[in-house]
Amino acid sequence: MSAAPSAPDELLDAAASGDRVALARLLSMVERGGALSGDVARLAYAAATPYTVGITGAPGSGKSTLTNELIHAARRGWPAHGDRATTEPVARVGVLAVDPSSPFTGGAILGDRVRMQEHATDPSVFIRSMATRGHLGGLTLAVPEAVRVLGAAGFPLVVVETVGVGQMEVEVASATDTTVVVVTPGWGDAMQASKAGLLEIADLFVVNKGDRPGVSEARRDLQQMLDLSAPSEWRPPVLTTVASAGDGVEDLWAAVALHRAHLESTGTLERRRKARYAQELRRVLTALVLEDVRTLAAGRSFDDAVRAIADGELDPYRAAEALLDERDRQLHETPR
Amino acid sequence: MSAAPSAPDELLDAAASGDRVALARLLSMVERGGALSGDVARLAYAAATPYTVGITGAPGSGKSTLTNELIHAARRGWPAHGDRATTEPVARVGVLAVDPSSPFTGGAILGDRVRMQEHATDPSVFIRSMATRGHLGGLTLAVPEAVRVLGAAGFPLVVVETVGVGQMEVEVASATDTTVVVVTPGWGDAMQASKAGLLEIADLFVVNKGDRPGVSEARRDLQQMLDLSAPSEWRPPVLTTVASAGDGVEDLWAAVALHRAHLESTGTLERRRKARYAQELRRVLTALVLEDVRTLAAGRSFDDAVRAIADGELDPYRAAEALLDERDRQLHETPR
Repeated sequence: MSAAPSAPDELLDAAASGDRVALARLLSMVERGGALSGDVARLAYAAATPYTVGITGAPGSGKSTLTNELIHAARRGWPAHGDRATTEPVARVGVLAVDPSSPFTGGAILGDRVRMQEHATDPSVFIRSMATRGHLGGLTLAVPEAVRVLGAAGFPLVVVETVGVGQMEVEVASATDTTVVVVTPGWGDAMQASKAGLLEIADLFVVNKGDRPGVSEARRDLQQMLDLSAPSEWRPPVLTTVASAGDGVEDLWAAVALHRAHLESTGTLERRRKARYAQELRRVLTALVLEDVRTLAAGRSFDDAVRAIADGELDPYRAAEALLDERDRQLHETPR
Repeated sequence: MSAAPSAPDELLDAAASGDRVALARLLSMVERGGALSGDVARLAYAAATPYTVGITGAPGSGKSTLTNELIHAARRGWPAHGDRATTEPVARVGVLAVDPSSPFTGGAILGDRVRMQEHATDPSVFIRSMATRGHLGGLTLAVPEAVRVLGAAGFPLVVVETVGVGQMEVEVASATDTTVVVVTPGWGDAMQASKAGLLEIADLFVVNKGDRPGVSEARRDLQQMLDLSAPSEWRPPVLTTVASAGDGVEDLWAAVALHRAHLESTGTLERRRKARYAQELRRVLTALVLEDVRTLAAGRSFDDAVRAIADGELDPYRAAEALLDERDRQLHETPR
């Protein structure tokens, strides 16, 4: 028996052959961030990009139950549509559940993650909660990397579920190909402040808990919002589900497939992904240069510079430029 | 008649000779930020550091009226105390009023700035509202620079007044030698959320509008908070003023002088200033490297990199490092 793989490339090979422990270890590397995460990203970026579906909404809107049901639907394949004459099977589904216990949101553990446990024994489904731990770019960088890792491990579809409607969660969920915003009857008053933001990111609206009073009001509310917004090529449909009973989930999956076909046929998919890559590259650049600043600020030259400023010999601008020059010289002598 | 000065060094000479227009132009340069602000900072840092007093508190607590009265008191000089056997005159007083109409706070124009207009004709007093405009480091960098400029122009005392108790305002006001937190009777309920933060930054507490009901409750509230906080060398005194009638302002000024004497005799002034210089240097470094990222992201190499990522030829980490390497090489060929 050979030793367990540990290098990123070995782990990626093992994960692609179905080794879930190797996949989990890779995702932990991504969460921890730093240099190793860069190595993983390097390897993963050579693989095909999975199709990503974001699910976001307020806590208690039933996102996890909906995601759980959506996995069942997705496993039966993409429905035939347009250019696709036949159903396209989805071999494996990955789920990234962005965990609010991360330092960015400071919440508690996701109790309802257990609702997805029925898939735990299905080798074709991989569910993972994500927190940031040490990743230097935070979840906004860690999640797209994790998606890439899942892609490289042979998952053509990844569902990114985020709890809460904070800036960061919304940013994470909306950085997907199709973004599903889940609301419940009576949501309007509760989420007044978030309405405009949700409208901006939604490709699909779902009124979940559709067996409760107030469904038609919630639907009308959404349609009125959509009527008032700028017309575009794609008007987000408003669907109704009762996720706990599985009602409406097939229709939701069909709507996701329709949106995917729309994105592909109009070239929007390519444009959106390119915009996301540009955003990701800016974030990596920012993370790298801020890491540089942290390194510089921990060094002896920094302390000397502070002393010189205190003594009136140097101003902070000249001091900062001198520190950056010194770093540049060192980089030139020992290239990255 | 010679031409009006326009270069930073000429303006600084003129400002030091009492040219208020030159001083105003220098402060505008600081507000606008960018390279010129660096030039101003360079020259200003060679001068003596003024003593700075921060005044912060919720809108409506009467900070401007208090600042106005404090200018009168300060103009009569630092009271004799400890090592200072005699009153030390304060030749000039500068006031920086951090304006909430800046992009960081998004508020309206300060109506009560007019309360300080009585000093407008006093050549020894210079009052200036500050907004950030384009400064790359924001107000947290612009204010200490403006203080330096006032110092170089011959102002040994600068009062920094901020409206509001937002994170940024508190950061600006507390980056002074003596920080005065102004509250009013009944403040406790209104500012429950900010209490801990205010306690952390306050060197002196003032209960202003001391002729209103609830003064003793407000004082007791503050004393109880102070009783519960960790003991330190300096326990912030709690003073009462009626700024509109000038009551208690001499005592407040005496307390500021006492705190100054404490800071000087214990070496705390030097330690605090050094910590502030380190913070300022980190902020300048951060602003410079983020400016680098913006420049990089606007360039053609960035677009090429995004295309390579989209085509699966490159991952964002390798792309970011290549962009930084390219920049480093260019810097090495044409040093800063």
